Amino acid sequence: MALRMSTLFLRTLRDDPAEAEVASHRLLVRAGYIRRAAPGIYTWLPLGLKVLSRVERIVREEMDAIGGQEVHFPALLPREPYEATGRWDEYGDGVFRLKDRKEADYLLAPTHEEMFTLLVKEHYSSYKDLPVYLYQIQTKYRDEARPRAGLLRGREFVMKDSYSFTVDDQGLQEAYDAHRAAYLRIFERLGLEVVPVQATAGAMGGSRSEEFLHPSPIGEDTYVESPGGYRANVEAVTSVAPDPLSEEAMAALPAAEVKDTPVSTTIAALVDVANDLAPREDGPWTAADTLKCVVLTAVLDGDERRQFVVAVPGDRDVDLKRLEASVGEALGVHGEPTVEAATEADLKRHPSLVKGYIGPGEGPDGRKVLGAEDSVSGLTFLVDPRIAAGTTWITGANADQKHVFGLVAGRDFTWDGVVESTVVREGDASPDGTGALTTRRGIEMGHIFQLGRKYAEALDLKVLDQNGKQVVVTMGSYGIGVTRSVAAIAETHHDEKGLVWPRAVAPADVHVVVAAKGADAFAYAEQLTARLEEAGHTVLLDDRTKVSPGVKFKDFELIGIPTAVVVGRGLTEGLLELKDRATGETREVSVDEVVAAVSAVVAADPEA
Amino acid sequence: MALRMSTLFLRTLRDDPAEAEVASHRLLVRAGYIRRAAPGIYTWLPLGLKVLSRVERIVREEMDAIGGQEVHFPALLPREPYEATGRWDEYGDGVFRLKDRKEADYLLAPTHEEMFTLLVKEHYSSYKDLPVYLYQIQTKYRDEARPRAGLLRGREFVMKDSYSFTVDDQGLQEAYDAHRAAYLRIFERLGLEVVPVQATAGAMGGSRSEEFLHPSPIGEDTYVESPGGYRANVEAVTSVAPDPLSEEAMAALPAAEVKDTPVSTTIAALVDVANDLAPREDGPWTAADTLKCVVLTAVLDGDERRQFVVAVPGDRDVDLKRLEASVGEALGVHGEPTVEAATEADLKRHPSLVKGYIGPGEGPDGRKVLGAEDSVSGLTFLVDPRIAAGTTWITGANADQKHVFGLVAGRDFTWDGVVESTVVREGDASPDGTGALTTRRGIEMGHIFQLGRKYAEALDLKVLDQNGKQVVVTMGSYGIGVTRSVAAIAETHHDEKGLVWPRAVAPADVHVVVAAKGADAFAYAEQLTARLEEAGHTVLLDDRTKVSPGVKFKDFELIGIPTAVVVGRGLTEGLLELKDRATGETREVSVDEVVAAVSAVVAADPEA
Repeated sequence: MALRMSTLFLRTLRDDPAEAEVASHRLLVRAGYIRRAAPGIYTWLPLGLKVLSRVERIVREEMDAIGGQEVHFPALLPREPYEATGRWDEYGDGVFRLKDRKEADYLLAPTHEEMFTLLVKEHYSSYKDLPVYLYQIQTKYRDEARPRAGLLRGREFVMKDSYSFTVDDQGLQEAYDAHRAAYLRIFERLGLEVVPVQATAGAMGGSRSEEFLHPSPIGEDTYVESPGGYRANVEAVTSVAPDPLSEEAMAALPAAEVKDTPVSTTIAALVDVANDLAPREDGPWTAADTLKCVVLTAVLDGDERRQFVVAVPGDRDVDLKRLEASVGEALGVHGEPTVEAATEADLKRHPSLVKGYIGPGEGPDGRKVLGAEDSVSGLTFLVDPRIAAGTTWITGANADQKHVFGLVAGRDFTWDGVVESTVVREGDASPDGTGALTTRRGIEMGHIFQLGRKYAEALDLKVLDQNGKQVVVTMGSYGIGVTRSVAAIAETHHDEKGLVWPRAVAPADVHVVVAAKGADAFAYAEQLTARLEEAGHTVLLDDRTKVSPGVKFKDFELIGIPTAVVVGRGLTEGLLELKDRATGETREVSVDEVVAAVSAVVAADPEA
Repeated sequence: MALRMSTLFLRTLRDDPAEAEVASHRLLVRAGYIRRAAPGIYTWLPLGLKVLSRVERIVREEMDAIGGQEVHFPALLPREPYEATGRWDEYGDGVFRLKDRKEADYLLAPTHEEMFTLLVKEHYSSYKDLPVYLYQIQTKYRDEARPRAGLLRGREFVMKDSYSFTVDDQGLQEAYDAHRAAYLRIFERLGLEVVPVQATAGAMGGSRSEEFLHPSPIGEDTYVESPGGYRANVEAVTSVAPDPLSEEAMAALPAAEVKDTPVSTTIAALVDVANDLAPREDGPWTAADTLKCVVLTAVLDGDERRQFVVAVPGDRDVDLKRLEASVGEALGVHGEPTVEAATEADLKRHPSLVKGYIGPGEGPDGRKVLGAEDSVSGLTFLVDPRIAAGTTWITGANADQKHVFGLVAGRDFTWDGVVESTVVREGDASPDGTGALTTRRGIEMGHIFQLGRKYAEALDLKVLDQNGKQVVVTMGSYGIGVTRSVAAIAETHHDEKGLVWPRAVAPADVHVVVAAKGADAFAYAEQLTARLEEAGHTVLLDDRTKVSPGVKFKDFELIGIPTAVVVGRGLTEGLLELKDRATGETREVSVDEVVAAVSAVVAADPEA
């Protein structure tokens, strides 16, 4: 059934909505695809729902093609399963929680690992039942601190999430590879360039994981690329560190020496003082030769503030987000604590730390302040991977206006853990050894995780293996942002006049514009619409009688259906115009060949 | 792509799930269509999701056919629009409420009148834009006190809700009639007998409304039918009352007389005493001659307990549910208060009411206890319609062990309002005058409302009419329980062996059962499946190699696909069996004609 502009529930807007920050949001609202209902919460209008359902269909087809079976879980879920895996607490403020009339705790699920695990547990008990890949296309909720950019970061959104259940790691690898390939096909069909990059697993747990990022200047993720093809989210980049020296080699290095370094509480001042006091033969000291010990606070469950110290080369900044991804494990705590700079109040709790002169060597009393088991501060001391054994540093001597020179890591001080903790920079060496990293921004469109056995263990999902032995099931989890895809497609497929949909997701195949006056033109357009539909095409017919051709063309450009047939003055001579939205090119076609011409254009697009 | 039992995510159960009370729930769980996630909250498994999506498709097609345009609203909605119409408070405990991280109030929407009204207000401003019919198929939430019967009364469920916006009442009537006709077509296609019955509008407001009830002994609604075709939900039945007498006629009736009626606090005892004290010429007094004044408590917003009194004939019971539907207006309060029997504590607050002897006539001091403006009790006094002017009653005389005889309604006492307040009984006179009512039970499948201008007024939705005048838009609201439909279909289409789906909603057209041993039979079944799919049929193939034919047949019967093709021993002679699930009939078909035979069976069903 053709869509008719005369009755379609649509009001295109000439002006940008006030709250829209990005092009996709602006255009999807102006062209009448979506409408804001609350911050980060949107209503889908008729045209928008058509695009959304075409995106869903593509996702569904590719998931079915790898043997995925579709199910549908509730959004409103009880606390218990999330309690069993520890995520009820880990989620913090990021989920919507509520109580029912009996005061039982519920959440609006942001993801469904627990429920899928329990469902498989209720159904299956033997290795013969595996592998099984289950998926859903379902509405999810996250109580985002800053919902933004329309559908790109919403609070109610649609995701495809799937879960693989296999008897071992090899099965997991196959499931992971199948999903990876399906994701690449899905995004290709959606007309969305994506780059798979290495990622951290985050709150999901598990080992290997990759994100599918759509390169975009408005993306919230930063990733790096090397000339050799290494790609990783900055949170997951592994720093290139010097090889550690042997104990003998370290022992042969000169002894560390404490020097008076008046008024040098900044790295720049310290470098100046160092070059004054102890100039180096092979070039001056730089910030990279200094070791900065930064006191940070991890905010744990129940708002406990635990301080720790991280040491990084003085020329680098601490990346709190990267630290958050790994510091939980290093501190031996549950989940992903928030990490922030220590406050004055935090610092006051640790009088052994001399502000501006903190270092991992000895203090004035000959005892280690950091890193040693009996350290004076008692704080967990972590180092960046660049602080490898045998590297030599200028750093604080734990006394006012004193620094130590030539302090050797692994000889003169030790640490409690190594964590990636510095901001990744354009030009940093790539871990694949192929040269310098470049950084780019991207929108996270998908994420695949090798979960391993974390959830199955927590929820006791086991099957009998071939030898009749109980084994914990191995899981993977795989997500695609479905509503986010609509926004990302709009973000990349538009021009200054409006949207330019890839044919596979356009709300219709062809837009018939009646640009001539008179009943004949309208009657012909109706008849043409019927013929186009018979030929299998979906049609948006602009049959408005009191709207000028100029306004109709503007709406065609704003709405962004890939092809228009213009019924204009030429009709009296049997001529129509075929207009391409992307290129703006127009060519004449006769009324006899118009249906065939449209079919040819549609068929030329492999994804239609 | 055929479903294959060898890999399908399915475990049929031989035993009934413990929590299942009704057949549909029991069978949908046993046959692997749904699974409970929490009380009243269900997960859809692969087979269930197929049925659900076929139901949705039928609903969508019929809504599109009457010009409905599909949109999709969020489930998570802010408080403000519901505040504007007063429903934020009216909903009481029945909705899930929550706060976001900024402490803003949200609810999980049970229905969307406000949001649709605001959406149309944002889009339209002229009568030329109307009528418009908008609908959605969307997940809704209600915090039911007693979720029960599986999908029949859930807390998370799918509904189709639509809303009509028209410029006047005539437009509303057209929209209402179009929806009514579409609903009848939908339920016919779903294989669900429904009866449209008059209904009360309830919390929706508005005037005319009808429910579509599926007759079923497990239904929660009771409705009545008359020989002449009057049908109404018991809550909406209008009682047949005697014609009121004129003032003159009433004045001519004998004066009321107070009598000592020792130990007669029950109606039965009172009738005995009356027949002793003042036997009547034309037959003995019965309970229908007495007037029972019942003290009730309306529980208002904020838990205020307000007492009121309702008078009903002594042979009838008060129907609290019917009272709740109308008492709010009679008491001059907002919404639908809960009504319950007054407690001892409630009664103690009203010492003028003499328990067992309450009546609307004078008390011992000559003052009216009930009904008059300066009544002693000060309580609102309501009467059943049967207490018409001129009717004569035996009732309490507001003094211990005293009753008054011959008290005439409208002459000796008055009232503050008339409300339908008694239980409707089988055999009661029908308001259409065609005879006695019969009562039946039904499941509410749909509900259509002529909302009128309540929401448009509250939210200021106006358009310019043909004369350039601002007019408030007229609305209708129309709902169908989509997930409930799946349950109701299962409830009516099953036998002792399992489900028996109508073809239009079955998870597949045909179930191919391999009942023979040997690779040839399996290879043939694969080939047959491919041919059936080529012919346009959907197939569930039971290709399990280690499962006996007996188990396969049991699963066929439990799952309930309408037709099976059995690949059995006859295959060696080129013979197969075609089995009808509903009748159990089996007939032989040759391998040459099997596809044509299946096509004929499928085509014979007009709704397939």
